[in-house]
Amino acid sequence: MRMVDLILKKRRGQELTAEEINFFINGYTQGEIPDYQAAAFLMAAFFQGLSPRETGDLTMAMANSGEQADLSAIPGIKVDKHSTGGVGDKTTLILGPLVAAAGVPVAKMSGRGLGHTGGTIDKLSSVPGFQVNLDNRRFLRQVKDIKLAVVAQTGHLAPADKKLYALRDVTATVDSIPLIAASVMSKKIAAGADAIVLDVKVGSGAFMKNPEAAFTLAGTMVDIGCRVGRQTVALVTDMDQPLGNAIGNALEVKEAIDTLKGQGPQDLRRLCLSLGSEMIMLAGQAADFATAHSRLSQILDSGLALAKFKEFINAQGGNGQIVDQYELLPQAPVVYAVAAATAGYVEAIQAEQIGLAAMQLGAGRATKEAAVDLAVGVVLRKKVGDRVNTGEPLCDIHARDEESARRAENIIRQAYTIGNQAPEKRKLILGKVTGAGRYEF
Amino acid sequence: MRMVDLILKKRRGQELTAEEINFFINGYTQGEIPDYQAAAFLMAAFFQGLSPRETGDLTMAMANSGEQADLSAIPGIKVDKHSTGGVGDKTTLILGPLVAAAGVPVAKMSGRGLGHTGGTIDKLSSVPGFQVNLDNRRFLRQVKDIKLAVVAQTGHLAPADKKLYALRDVTATVDSIPLIAASVMSKKIAAGADAIVLDVKVGSGAFMKNPEAAFTLAGTMVDIGCRVGRQTVALVTDMDQPLGNAIGNALEVKEAIDTLKGQGPQDLRRLCLSLGSEMIMLAGQAADFATAHSRLSQILDSGLALAKFKEFINAQGGNGQIVDQYELLPQAPVVYAVAAATAGYVEAIQAEQIGLAAMQLGAGRATKEAAVDLAVGVVLRKKVGDRVNTGEPLCDIHARDEESARRAENIIRQAYTIGNQAPEKRKLILGKVTGAGRYEF
Repeated sequence: MRMVDLILKKRRGQELTAEEINFFINGYTQGEIPDYQAAAFLMAAFFQGLSPRETGDLTMAMANSGEQADLSAIPGIKVDKHSTGGVGDKTTLILGPLVAAAGVPVAKMSGRGLGHTGGTIDKLSSVPGFQVNLDNRRFLRQVKDIKLAVVAQTGHLAPADKKLYALRDVTATVDSIPLIAASVMSKKIAAGADAIVLDVKVGSGAFMKNPEAAFTLAGTMVDIGCRVGRQTVALVTDMDQPLGNAIGNALEVKEAIDTLKGQGPQDLRRLCLSLGSEMIMLAGQAADFATAHSRLSQILDSGLALAKFKEFINAQGGNGQIVDQYELLPQAPVVYAVAAATAGYVEAIQAEQIGLAAMQLGAGRATKEAAVDLAVGVVLRKKVGDRVNTGEPLCDIHARDEESARRAENIIRQAYTIGNQAPEKRKLILGKVTGAGRYEF
Repeated sequence: MRMVDLILKKRRGQELTAEEINFFINGYTQGEIPDYQAAAFLMAAFFQGLSPRETGDLTMAMANSGEQADLSAIPGIKVDKHSTGGVGDKTTLILGPLVAAAGVPVAKMSGRGLGHTGGTIDKLSSVPGFQVNLDNRRFLRQVKDIKLAVVAQTGHLAPADKKLYALRDVTATVDSIPLIAASVMSKKIAAGADAIVLDVKVGSGAFMKNPEAAFTLAGTMVDIGCRVGRQTVALVTDMDQPLGNAIGNALEVKEAIDTLKGQGPQDLRRLCLSLGSEMIMLAGQAADFATAHSRLSQILDSGLALAKFKEFINAQGGNGQIVDQYELLPQAPVVYAVAAATAGYVEAIQAEQIGLAAMQLGAGRATKEAAVDLAVGVVLRKKVGDRVNTGEPLCDIHARDEESARRAENIIRQAYTIGNQAPEKRKLILGKVTGAGRYEF
């Protein structure tokens, strides 16, 4: 088998066999197939697409390219959750304890973020003492004991995906739906998930800018799950404005705790209850959405989820006192309110711009090697549809110094659109995709 | 400027500026842009195409990427000829002395061949004593003195093209018309041509299998020539069966001499007179085709072209006696006639298969490093349209040994189609493309 023939086959729009896809992925992972052939193949795949069967085979080839987490020691169906990424997305911090408190084991491996803010692992790192690296034995024992552990993902999972992703980034082949879908699913499968709930974001702050593309991506990932024997459900959710109010690592931990106390933003609470309901249904702990939802609402409102969060933080060496004493979390020296220049209704908040402002403050990474400032970020005080008077604060900037605060302010002012009319209410959850089909709400 | 943005731009079907194309070619030649980005760009260009303006800019960027031959010391318009390649194509050996004898300077750099048989340089190497490497001073002086010199091309001309061609070969991006056109034209321009005559082959033995593709390639190359100030004319000519009868290096030299003596195959003679007429018209030595053609016919029939050939061979250290003593050329030890198994008319001869048989005999190179056996090859005795009786020879195989002769025989038998009816006569010259338009004959 020669790689040049496989490139030609794909270029001509023909379907590759599973054997051919394995030849490519194994050869590329082992360095026998050079980057330039992989790059030509990816560009051909961008133009010609991959069939559902090819996409499934690619996913499994990448999942099998390195170590695979073995979660079989943990009884029950292990459900993982993945978000395609947005601004202010701290759902994992809430979902983990919420679902664990419902009795579903959560054995989560998370990445460090590259972009606006850190990833879940960075956010948890803002809790004093919290250990993101557990050895495998301790990781599994903790999940068995308290149903919840979150650790930093090692580089040994799906190395083919890691290598291909880096190549796609520099060859303008990132935005191919089958390639994105295979990348996400290969990592989840290598991380040991039996079932997967996907949160596919759509809007100005998401990779998918329009609902059609988001539903297509969701459908492609759900199809992969079905093909490879992992039950998968996707929600397509709004990311036209940031989720919740807080953007920034410690600020998001605080907002997650607020939400676990029943005091968080409504959009964040609703999304967590919906995603959590899908998770416990896949885990076989609830027969239908209404049952799942009412059970999780009860767990949240009774404080059980908050207690689970504290238990989890303590178990991984963190200081559980943070749930009551927010001042134990990193604090930014400068807090600066951005006041509205005109009165009216907030018509739009460009989520991507808000994310950019947070990244400029130091909350995110522009490159893999960059350090993250855990304290800084933005807390929105007005969201889309809110009435605002002149001089009223739109948001608070948490900054390292005055200068960076002012730079962020400029970006944020441009992100807000204030108009005369209250905008039409947007749906938080646009729809759901399962193996049985696509449902738009 | 970032290469990834240029890839994205091309992927989206947008036109690159001359500055962007120069950035790519210069960066790639200097090793600053890696192969994998060039490969992704080439595949995007394969799918999205290149505009005529982009193709012209790419050609000049590649022509300017290394040394350029300076032929300004030679008075007059220097016309170069290029064939897109076929089986049995020895026209340069005839055209060079023919056109030079008409007073047009021919300062030719030729490559070694990769494929069925050697290139012009390999063919000339079969002449005892012939020197293919002349230093620049001697090369120019010879052209001034006798109007004709043919030397091996150095690696310093159009290095960008050389590097890109090698990359295209392993990334399934060879067969893109603008990329092929830019590759051919960049080398001709770097070799110092003022004007260019192209012989675009079409048929089973050519890269272009159908006339439409051949005319498109011809049109693209002519357009480049017009854009960059090099008058260019293309003939689209038949390569469905081999050109002439001889395939193999020394065998082709012999046939070229026969043709210069007025004893060669008719198709070869006709094609050389047509291509030569275009060359002397571009050189400003004839006002119209009829004048050019009658002048060249006269030069050929009077023996002036043969005399020029002998003078040229002698000037480059070769033994001019070969024109009368063919036995001075390398001779294959085994000559083996392939007899027809059935009687009828030759309906078709798969040129590509005949080329393959010659290569298997050792006449061509499968890899760049392989040595060429100058003596071996095939001489056709029956061509398309000829009547053949059972047991009559279809061709002679000139081989190193019996075994390789038999292997070649098997291939050749499959290449010949013998039927009951004389096939319709095919056109030798299908048409002509100039800056003014396309003419199908």
